Amino acid sequence: MEKPVADGLEGLELEKKQSHAPDSVALGKEKPARSAAAQGSVSAETKKRVERETKEGIDCRKADNFSAWYQQVVIKAELIELYDISGCYIIRPWAYAVWEKIVEFFDAEIKKLGVQNAYFPVFVSERRLRTEQEHLEGFAAEVAWVTKSGSSELEEPIAIRPTSETIIYPAMAKWIRSHRDLPLKLNQWSNVVRWEFKHPTPFIRSREFLWQEGHTAYADRSAADEEVLQILELYRRIYEELLAVPVIKGIKSERERFAGGLYTTTVEAFVPANGRAVQGATSHSLGQNFARMFGVYYEGKDSGEKLMPWQNSWGCTTRTIGVAVMVHGDDRGLVLPPRVAPLQVVIVPIIVKNAAANVSQVCEVLCLRLQRANLRVKFDDRPEKTPGWKFNEWELRGVPLRIEVGPRDVQSKTITIARRDTMEKRSIQLVDWDALEADDSFGREIAKILDDIQKSMFERASAERNARIRCVASWEPFMKAIIERCLALTPWCAETNCEEQVRQRSMQDSVSYRERLANEVDPAAADTVLSGAVKTLCMPFASELERLRLVDRSEYEAPAPGKQCFACDAAAKRWALWGRSY
Amino acid sequence: MEKPVADGLEGLELEKKQSHAPDSVALGKEKPARSAAAQGSVSAETKKRVERETKEGIDCRKADNFSAWYQQVVIKAELIELYDISGCYIIRPWAYAVWEKIVEFFDAEIKKLGVQNAYFPVFVSERRLRTEQEHLEGFAAEVAWVTKSGSSELEEPIAIRPTSETIIYPAMAKWIRSHRDLPLKLNQWSNVVRWEFKHPTPFIRSREFLWQEGHTAYADRSAADEEVLQILELYRRIYEELLAVPVIKGIKSERERFAGGLYTTTVEAFVPANGRAVQGATSHSLGQNFARMFGVYYEGKDSGEKLMPWQNSWGCTTRTIGVAVMVHGDDRGLVLPPRVAPLQVVIVPIIVKNAAANVSQVCEVLCLRLQRANLRVKFDDRPEKTPGWKFNEWELRGVPLRIEVGPRDVQSKTITIARRDTMEKRSIQLVDWDALEADDSFGREIAKILDDIQKSMFERASAERNARIRCVASWEPFMKAIIERCLALTPWCAETNCEEQVRQRSMQDSVSYRERLANEVDPAAADTVLSGAVKTLCMPFASELERLRLVDRSEYEAPAPGKQCFACDAAAKRWALWGRSY
Repeated sequence: MEKPVADGLEGLELEKKQSHAPDSVALGKEKPARSAAAQGSVSAETKKRVERETKEGIDCRKADNFSAWYQQVVIKAELIELYDISGCYIIRPWAYAVWEKIVEFFDAEIKKLGVQNAYFPVFVSERRLRTEQEHLEGFAAEVAWVTKSGSSELEEPIAIRPTSETIIYPAMAKWIRSHRDLPLKLNQWSNVVRWEFKHPTPFIRSREFLWQEGHTAYADRSAADEEVLQILELYRRIYEELLAVPVIKGIKSERERFAGGLYTTTVEAFVPANGRAVQGATSHSLGQNFARMFGVYYEGKDSGEKLMPWQNSWGCTTRTIGVAVMVHGDDRGLVLPPRVAPLQVVIVPIIVKNAAANVSQVCEVLCLRLQRANLRVKFDDRPEKTPGWKFNEWELRGVPLRIEVGPRDVQSKTITIARRDTMEKRSIQLVDWDALEADDSFGREIAKILDDIQKSMFERASAERNARIRCVASWEPFMKAIIERCLALTPWCAETNCEEQVRQRSMQDSVSYRERLANEVDPAAADTVLSGAVKTLCMPFASELERLRLVDRSEYEAPAPGKQCFACDAAAKRWALWGRSY
Repeated sequence: MEKPVADGLEGLELEKKQSHAPDSVALGKEKPARSAAAQGSVSAETKKRVERETKEGIDCRKADNFSAWYQQVVIKAELIELYDISGCYIIRPWAYAVWEKIVEFFDAEIKKLGVQNAYFPVFVSERRLRTEQEHLEGFAAEVAWVTKSGSSELEEPIAIRPTSETIIYPAMAKWIRSHRDLPLKLNQWSNVVRWEFKHPTPFIRSREFLWQEGHTAYADRSAADEEVLQILELYRRIYEELLAVPVIKGIKSERERFAGGLYTTTVEAFVPANGRAVQGATSHSLGQNFARMFGVYYEGKDSGEKLMPWQNSWGCTTRTIGVAVMVHGDDRGLVLPPRVAPLQVVIVPIIVKNAAANVSQVCEVLCLRLQRANLRVKFDDRPEKTPGWKFNEWELRGVPLRIEVGPRDVQSKTITIARRDTMEKRSIQLVDWDALEADDSFGREIAKILDDIQKSMFERASAERNARIRCVASWEPFMKAIIERCLALTPWCAETNCEEQVRQRSMQDSVSYRERLANEVDPAAADTVLSGAVKTLCMPFASELERLRLVDRSEYEAPAPGKQCFACDAAAKRWALWGRSY
């Protein structure tokens, strides 16, 4: 069985200063050998040291122990700091800067759609929370309640928002009076609290998280439906274009849809390293259900009649960051896609005592040049750290591109660049140091390399993900796919009852499989079998089936007539994507 | 006695749809008289209607009943929506957009100073909150406690942050290890909760509010001290440059400084309409006190010695918006300074049936022109609203500049502009409609008018505020100033004991004064006497005394030697600014 993700961490003495890998190396007296530096590159000896340093960075392999690897990466790359309340984490500047990039992109895009930002209270009264019964049932177990202020009991307990439908819609009921008040499109950037008892995982499942929640109301149902997909497309772009993480768009099954809503659309990501899917972000059609419950009515165009608007809500959280870490990270640590990396380029000087060449000055010129090209760049001129230490630190922290400049480089007018994603190193010949200051081409060249990194990170992640989707039509290959940590795309009857039975049966089969391994075949492998029920991630849209090319072109819209559900005897109605999920 | 600000509102039936003034007019059949429209202006008849509409906007005068006026403005101008939990308010898009402008400015400025954003949990354990005793005492009575999740009791109650020193500094203790880790400069944008029992007032005092809180640590005390003032200067700029609200910078008295800190600096605003001061934003030196309590130590440059950093914290809240509303608003509603106005210009067409001139087309060209000049502009082309209704609505909502275009304007190549701050209207001659599209000068001219509005709003507010500061040296003129709703600048001994006595004595004197009015002189006036104790707002910096020119040049640094405290027999050490405060 997979080791619980957080138990080890929760046991840590948080108040005690933790050892910090790079520092212990920095305090050593080693300097890079002159010969290595003079070549503007790194000698075999230095390489050995770098490897040793890397070991002091992340001390387990992503493929061997994914959970431990993830926890080390988020802490050692300075994305997360642990906190003394279980399930709560500190989002450090290195991670928050990634969130700011996501916010900047999404906020600008929704403003183009006419969405306005607002801020609604963090508190909700019990009465309001109870207004929509199905919605309440979806969240009740996870609601945190304030019952005291100072040393006095409150007259009534007050909930902290797990989401804000019940907070926002009574206000919408006041603001929407005429068809002219529609569409009304609101969004807020805020924190929310869901007091879950599943194992917390930084970014992916925490008791407090940051998100945006959009809440809109339309007179016209088709315009509302259209918006659901417009927003979903923006979520796809956050994952695919900003984070270089491929996702699959689709609609949630009845069992998985938002409590109280009409239908839920989703972008689903996949973590190849452990075979788990992650719900990326969701865009819900709420239909008229909440409008009815909260009395949101408007006067129509032609009649004096009271009409109900069609409502949507949609949200995307700091989970995005965790998904990108899981998908792209490697045994050296974090790998950040250039579009969201707080630093895109780090310039490391290979300083050698008594060398005539002015390495620092050249680095400064390069740095300025890249800043002028609007790149996020840092010249790491710390005198107390060795180049090897710096290489190690910035690799651990996932900076997409490193530029190395040594005395020989200065003489030969070259620089060495090292890509974080492929770890590939190569030299770039520059025309002239003096010309550099007045010339844009260097900035453009580096920007092009960053674009290429972004693109190839996405392509690599897509290839890995695609290789792990299996189209299966019956139970045995389905379970085989699941056990082999793949996603399964199946013809499906789309019945809730069937999904429930698949969950049960997949759990039993996993247990039996694990027992068989443990008793007969391979006791060590038994521990690596993923636990937990299989569920539908989504029913992918036809356009996604086309992108994935896993089914016949004629079946993009739905499985061919006459095709059976993979799990029961009923006729298949939809394609469904199944997997174990966070 | 001043009427309680919020009681009336809390009694409102929040679920019931409220009547909405402009709509009731819009539903009427009145159209602007053709003659008025044809003149590109508004006839006497229309003016009368506009006045009637205005009455249906804000129905009390700022000078007569300030509290009622403020409540109406924030609701009717759509800044605030009331909420069913006392002391919590919904910040509507019109207000949130102002906040976004403040955030944009301040966030960019602190990033220039090297401050990094992060996000820390909303929850804090009781143990941590109790670490710094004085700090705890400052906040304990206002802390909201979570004691339940779902239907289970938590093992230990968990507090919601009233501020984040106790949340952030244990983490700083981990991150700061060497002098090389300093300075460490962090900031977060977040919500905080202070469960106060004073009368809530939208923006000014609410139980939840939005803010930024900066938390920094320095090796060097003087660098820390310098930052306190750099940040305070940014707060001054938020008020004076963005919100056109004059403030006075100074240091808080011992009684008013931040609980647990070393000293607190502040920008203090003043609301002439009711004579109350408002603490605008504060920038604290925490000294080494929190470092000691939370074990923040670092290794120094020369020694293996453990040293403590010097820490600051600083915060600015959504209160800013309320102060601007109070200072600038008038009997027609909100008056927004152009730099933060969500809309800077609204273009209202005076459409006349069968008129040949293409008013709409001209409006569209103007609108595009202004958008290209990066102004925030709206062409209000709603066919169902009359020009008068639109004038009224945008005046109520405080848009700085209105442009009116009628058929005669089109013919004569003029437009009418109306300034919201002065209500002044004048015509502008344009060169040519066709040339307009290719010409920047129109955008520049309007931008210049907006700059002028910004400037004259600040000058007017400064003059009003300055006229209400009295320099007094003894008790009687002090109480006279206070009773006449002025601020009093006094020579002061700077002793806490003396401040406590001033508070007591000023309360007694106010009560006697009110009783005398009620019984003998002017019973009606008795109700208008401000209640509450007088306190020090700040001890203004020498530079501020110079700006204010209320004291002799030789006394900018401190009252002249030998001068006595205005309230007790001790020698005066500082100038102090006193008033009744929110």
